[in-house]
Amino acid sequence: MEQVAEQLDLLIEARWVIPVEPANVTLEHHAIAIRGEEIVAVLPISEARMRFSAAQTVSLPEHVLIPGLINLHTHAPMALMRGMADDLPLMRWLMEEIWPAESAHVSDRFVFDGTLVGGAEMLRGGITCAADMYFYPDAAARAYEQLGMRAVIGMTVIDFPTNYASTAADYLSKGLQVRDSWRDHSRISFALAPHAPYTVSNATWERIGSLAEELDALIHTHVQETAGEVTESIEKHGVRPLERLRSLGLLGPNLLIAHAVHLNGEEIRLLADNNVGVAHNPTSNMKLASGAAPVADMLAAGIRVGLGSDGAASNNRLDIFQEMRMASLLAKLTTGDASVLPAHKMLQMATIDAAHALGMQAKIGSLLPGKKADIVAVSLDTLETAPVFDPASHLVFVSGREHVAQVWIAGHTLIQDGGLLHNDNKELLGISRLWQNSLQNRRLTANPGSV
Amino acid sequence: MEQVAEQLDLLIEARWVIPVEPANVTLEHHAIAIRGEEIVAVLPISEARMRFSAAQTVSLPEHVLIPGLINLHTHAPMALMRGMADDLPLMRWLMEEIWPAESAHVSDRFVFDGTLVGGAEMLRGGITCAADMYFYPDAAARAYEQLGMRAVIGMTVIDFPTNYASTAADYLSKGLQVRDSWRDHSRISFALAPHAPYTVSNATWERIGSLAEELDALIHTHVQETAGEVTESIEKHGVRPLERLRSLGLLGPNLLIAHAVHLNGEEIRLLADNNVGVAHNPTSNMKLASGAAPVADMLAAGIRVGLGSDGAASNNRLDIFQEMRMASLLAKLTTGDASVLPAHKMLQMATIDAAHALGMQAKIGSLLPGKKADIVAVSLDTLETAPVFDPASHLVFVSGREHVAQVWIAGHTLIQDGGLLHNDNKELLGISRLWQNSLQNRRLTANPGSV
Repeated sequence: MEQVAEQLDLLIEARWVIPVEPANVTLEHHAIAIRGEEIVAVLPISEARMRFSAAQTVSLPEHVLIPGLINLHTHAPMALMRGMADDLPLMRWLMEEIWPAESAHVSDRFVFDGTLVGGAEMLRGGITCAADMYFYPDAAARAYEQLGMRAVIGMTVIDFPTNYASTAADYLSKGLQVRDSWRDHSRISFALAPHAPYTVSNATWERIGSLAEELDALIHTHVQETAGEVTESIEKHGVRPLERLRSLGLLGPNLLIAHAVHLNGEEIRLLADNNVGVAHNPTSNMKLASGAAPVADMLAAGIRVGLGSDGAASNNRLDIFQEMRMASLLAKLTTGDASVLPAHKMLQMATIDAAHALGMQAKIGSLLPGKKADIVAVSLDTLETAPVFDPASHLVFVSGREHVAQVWIAGHTLIQDGGLLHNDNKELLGISRLWQNSLQNRRLTANPGSV
Repeated sequence: MEQVAEQLDLLIEARWVIPVEPANVTLEHHAIAIRGEEIVAVLPISEARMRFSAAQTVSLPEHVLIPGLINLHTHAPMALMRGMADDLPLMRWLMEEIWPAESAHVSDRFVFDGTLVGGAEMLRGGITCAADMYFYPDAAARAYEQLGMRAVIGMTVIDFPTNYASTAADYLSKGLQVRDSWRDHSRISFALAPHAPYTVSNATWERIGSLAEELDALIHTHVQETAGEVTESIEKHGVRPLERLRSLGLLGPNLLIAHAVHLNGEEIRLLADNNVGVAHNPTSNMKLASGAAPVADMLAAGIRVGLGSDGAASNNRLDIFQEMRMASLLAKLTTGDASVLPAHKMLQMATIDAAHALGMQAKIGSLLPGKKADIVAVSLDTLETAPVFDPASHLVFVSGREHVAQVWIAGHTLIQDGGLLHNDNKELLGISRLWQNSLQNRRLTANPGSV
């Protein structure tokens, strides 16, 4: 009796597949079967060829397939300010360089252009989903939409006026209006994004807490990035920032905190007990001399920790391959234990653990059947990546984003042979250079002597 | 009156040139004039075109030219063991994984093949000179010679027998014989390479000290990489390793110590007073959880610190771009000062400071007229590197070895458009895979249950 082949839109055959779920598994000579936006099956190539008839088959004999990487904390438009001010600590960097530049330049156009440029950089580096927070969320949404990426866009709230909005209430109402206009988009969603405890008042935090409950929305914020922030909170509020958020009823599974560098043991338990998600940004924390987050302790306590690049002005790469390597190396150094944060765990942090922190684990973060086909193919066919004893180890300690060959989001091919398929690289470079000119002109005008 | 144009072999015109000497300078629209193996001048493009008539002109309108990078501590053949054993501390990694594999496999052929593969990786990543130490120095020399690279090859001495030699005297006599046979080679030279204080006896150290003086040779060794090594030395010898080397008369400008992770203030002064060179290996030290070397303090004391990748089995990249970024980030983190080890200093460490540590500062390490034309062109014409406010900052915090477009050594083009010009990439990949098979077969035989 003959079996009828099942129809597929896409079959991707590869030398290796690391599905992330189940954990710690590297499959050899496997294929991913895709129908519409979704993964149908992950199975040996020989079985796939018998069972399916695919409209398109892609063969990658020297590649490893992994779930799309998630950048759990970024400010994509800051790609336009990449390298504008380096070798400075966080507060000087923010107050003397970044905030003045932003107040002079940030606009709907700046955010659209910057998200396009920063988003394209991420996409080429295998990042399929970004938790982004900046100003002008509608501009960010349009850019991610154009790129074909998945994004959780912050509706920023900060208790001081900017070009974008004047009061906390104004930020909120503008943000919610944008969210409304993108309702039911399959790839674009929104999070409440109070900037940080030190820039948002108790009343605003409480309002955000109620809204989050009402809308079942994620809250994405910066917490305890620097020691100074903790000291200042004790002086002003009598308690550390996390205790303040706790007393305001903010701690819960819909809270995602970026950085969490300065945590004591009690706070680690508090985060674990309340199922709070954490975005670890090792490169940014090192570059600004903020410190090293106690990630090994957080993982031991059961906290979901994903990886973020932060903005390109403090990193200066939107590169989750770099963050996987950095997070592993940094944890080995700070614990004195070379076995912590091993390769497979880093891949989990960059995918399924981040998906959990976003509440999107049913949809993305691994290559299980039923999930969206957000997939990255990394070539191991280079001198730099040979020999290959263990593809998982290579992805963390050897490969770079430059080895990303193909990227699919929801089953659509977005990167082919390392290049953008639907956006023009030259045009994006031109956009970036135009903004460089205007940013530089402002600096020359503000500081005519310092060229 | 007409001027007669001076003849050149090569004129390289570029958007930016960072000559490293003078320090902290970025030249725009400059050219490098080359005659034979040497740099004749670095000057504005317009002047260069008037003054010179060049047999070949290379125009790089979106690139930055820098001196060839120096890998100040590596074991190139270990590229064949890349990723063979990860997430393990130094002593377990060495004793359970690396040493057994080496004792089963290391041969003249292994070293030649491994140096070819590891050297090609370095060359593609802008490394023009490597201070290498392993076994079979003649095999290493032949491989570096074939690649066209510059190398300072260690004549390894260790107080236990290997495939290569039986006793310290045997190691020494074999090494010196090889050195003799390569005498007067323009790119290949040799260093005495006692493995480490904990593997070399006092008598052998003393012999090496006299030989170094007699031959005016560099001594390249591992010192105080782990805390355990220091404790063990105190137990065995009553003093820390550096004090032991001092009492044996080894400290001087011809000594290059790799790692130097565990140093106290007195030892930093001792190294500075004796003008000892240091090879800092930040990634390897983090990956093996050895610790963070006090580089900012060493620099403040005036010590010459260069950068090393160590071997690919403990890194797992032979990549000085990565080490520049890592060293800067690590120093910012450990000092809590975001302004330490800024971009231009990192470029100096990777070039002229390393050249000083090798005693080769008259020949390489900067783009001064009279030096060898060892030059790297890095493309900044990519989405990931746009915009460009400061090329020096980009080279450290943004660019990767994947942006290396051209490499010249002694005026010869070795890398063009990112690819090897004189060696076949596919052939090198094949060599690497053959060795992977034999290494894996051994592991399966030794551990039939653990696949």
